[in-house]
Amino acid sequence: MAVQRLTSRDIRSESRLDVMTALVVAREASRNDLTRQTGLSSATVATVVAELIAAGIITEGRTTTGKVGRPTTVLHINAERGYVVGVDVAETYVRAIVFDAALDEVGSAQVARDEHESTAEYVADGVERAVVGALEDAGVSRDRVLGVGVSLPGLVVRESTTSILVPEWTWHESGMSRVRDHLGLPMVIENPLKAVAAAELWFGEGRESGSFVTLNLGTGVGAGIVIAGEILRGATSSAGEWGHSLLVLDGRGCRCGRRGCVEAYVGAPGIQETLREVDPEHPLAHADLQQHFIEALAASLAADSADPAVVETIRRTSYYLGSAIADLVAIINPEVVTLTGWTAWALGDYLVPLTRDVLVAQAPGESAVDVHLHVSTGRGNLVATGMAVQAMTRFLVDVGLLTSKVPAGL
Amino acid sequence: MAVQRLTSRDIRSESRLDVMTALVVAREASRNDLTRQTGLSSATVATVVAELIAAGIITEGRTTTGKVGRPTTVLHINAERGYVVGVDVAETYVRAIVFDAALDEVGSAQVARDEHESTAEYVADGVERAVVGALEDAGVSRDRVLGVGVSLPGLVVRESTTSILVPEWTWHESGMSRVRDHLGLPMVIENPLKAVAAAELWFGEGRESGSFVTLNLGTGVGAGIVIAGEILRGATSSAGEWGHSLLVLDGRGCRCGRRGCVEAYVGAPGIQETLREVDPEHPLAHADLQQHFIEALAASLAADSADPAVVETIRRTSYYLGSAIADLVAIINPEVVTLTGWTAWALGDYLVPLTRDVLVAQAPGESAVDVHLHVSTGRGNLVATGMAVQAMTRFLVDVGLLTSKVPAGL
Repeated sequence: MAVQRLTSRDIRSESRLDVMTALVVAREASRNDLTRQTGLSSATVATVVAELIAAGIITEGRTTTGKVGRPTTVLHINAERGYVVGVDVAETYVRAIVFDAALDEVGSAQVARDEHESTAEYVADGVERAVVGALEDAGVSRDRVLGVGVSLPGLVVRESTTSILVPEWTWHESGMSRVRDHLGLPMVIENPLKAVAAAELWFGEGRESGSFVTLNLGTGVGAGIVIAGEILRGATSSAGEWGHSLLVLDGRGCRCGRRGCVEAYVGAPGIQETLREVDPEHPLAHADLQQHFIEALAASLAADSADPAVVETIRRTSYYLGSAIADLVAIINPEVVTLTGWTAWALGDYLVPLTRDVLVAQAPGESAVDVHLHVSTGRGNLVATGMAVQAMTRFLVDVGLLTSKVPAGL
Repeated sequence: MAVQRLTSRDIRSESRLDVMTALVVAREASRNDLTRQTGLSSATVATVVAELIAAGIITEGRTTTGKVGRPTTVLHINAERGYVVGVDVAETYVRAIVFDAALDEVGSAQVARDEHESTAEYVADGVERAVVGALEDAGVSRDRVLGVGVSLPGLVVRESTTSILVPEWTWHESGMSRVRDHLGLPMVIENPLKAVAAAELWFGEGRESGSFVTLNLGTGVGAGIVIAGEILRGATSSAGEWGHSLLVLDGRGCRCGRRGCVEAYVGAPGIQETLREVDPEHPLAHADLQQHFIEALAASLAADSADPAVVETIRRTSYYLGSAIADLVAIINPEVVTLTGWTAWALGDYLVPLTRDVLVAQAPGESAVDVHLHVSTGRGNLVATGMAVQAMTRFLVDVGLLTSKVPAGL
């Protein structure tokens, strides 16, 4: 694939996206506010705002008068423009969230999944039921939906096929095509790592930083990589599979079928395996539900006298995590590393300080000294939020306002 | 660092660079040829060519008449415009190569380095002597030099300092500033991984592919990463330190002071350590000079009956190398992986097929199936060539023809 060349349409597209995201975050802003926040010229902001008003994306609200000077017209996103749906197909559930065009959540639904069943029909059915349920919850009719974004774990796009690299997921694009045809809605698909990166790019630290990595820590782990403000997709859309890069050649077996992957050490089942290595008889060593196991670790650490086996498990996990992040710093050298996912939210306070020390020691030279490692301030389902952002972006591309290369979807 | 926003100057800059690189490679071309090669419109090519002629970068040559149609004016780079010097500061030598503005080599010089001495003064003195020697060899006077590009191993740029991460290299920018002041020439510094990537971007496979990785295999190893046609520098200019990412947590000691780095397995001393593990008594197990050791392996493999210990060493090295490249594919997901450096040139025929099999097996899912893994067709000192390219780019920026973000240098 040859290098994409820039055109003046790309510049205008970027300006529109900057104004749009600034307004989504600020909720309301004057043209002057937008000029300040985006760093664009006031002439560019005026032009872009006029275009977005003409397209029904932005509306002018009440006019306020400050202490001095002229009255100011306040702008906001036209929430009535329509709705987007973000869908997170996770191990044990499918969650769909409906957002209005201002990206405020207006309804949601969740459908349980049997994590051992992964046929195309079963997953597609779950997506469809979750979307329909979320639209009902929001009281939004299908014809008001601008687009649906679906996150599928481990997405890989090859030249002629779209497939899924999670081991047992062998189904191809036909499954999702069926959903799209049933729903009759524009649809974009992406993997959860890139979905989280998209959410951070619009709502998180990414707004301030040109290059960052979001690490999702849950059952699986992976990275969303943003370079110069763009999500890194890679040749087959599988960039960011840091969870399946090696920490220990020929090390622990990973559920992907290979050995020694990062995920086998810092995914929730990997952390449990570490606890079993520390104390095979520990009451939590064989806890059934991963998320409960992680929460039990957090509860133990918060107690007055922490369980020494749990403390040692956290120490080893920080060593694994810091070493694995050091590899990302060696290769990508980002400014910011953001931890997300339920493991990060439950254990972040304990993991981050230890992990930071390991990271600085294990990364080449001084390359990690200035890295800002922190837990994401975003909460809720960042995967669904990110997919709603992607669906909105795709809509803006379809109506000719953006040229950004969002995934072609289906 | 906030995201850099595009301007229309960036678009014009990219077009100029495209025309320039196409003409450097083609040596001579008509405007129509350039239109075909760059994919730019013929109007853009005409404008850009006029600008580059005005700046003395391109000249119009003889007019040829084809079998049919109008006579065609042939363009070429104005080699007389001036000279650039590329300098490779390696472990055991400093090599400087002088190129004319068409990037044809016109002279060179090499100065031996004691690899155990790395004071700023010593290295700076070596750079200066090599540059002066190369200019003498080329018969080029100093006032004809447009710029000098110096590659230093393991460059790291932090907010206020430029330092070097190769363990024993503790000197800071003062050393290179002294050289620049002595030579009185514009200077740009960069690390060798990015220099090789720059050479590949102008002369190699990079011209066809938007995202690729060049792996330099020698005493040290590392990656030059190109994404969407841009060299990835990272927050502290140390992106691509793949050689110091982990292959085996707590594995072999690496000369960087940490354990288990990729370089400790696939750098030339690492390959020798593998041979010692296979057969501690092997005559080559303690060979003194690394490059001779690698060449001896190649000679053994080319012999009628290859030495089983050498064959096993190559098998294990391919396993290490393929696994380590799989990590890059997991994280970056490039289209092309190009091997360079004297290990790649000597052993590539033996390493590549085995490494490819390991890569496909070890990378997540099908993500490496379509990766084009090959030995660079470029020969000679790609580091010096790449630094000459960087010096030329910097010159074009300084005269206002490019906006590309080349390193700020010193």
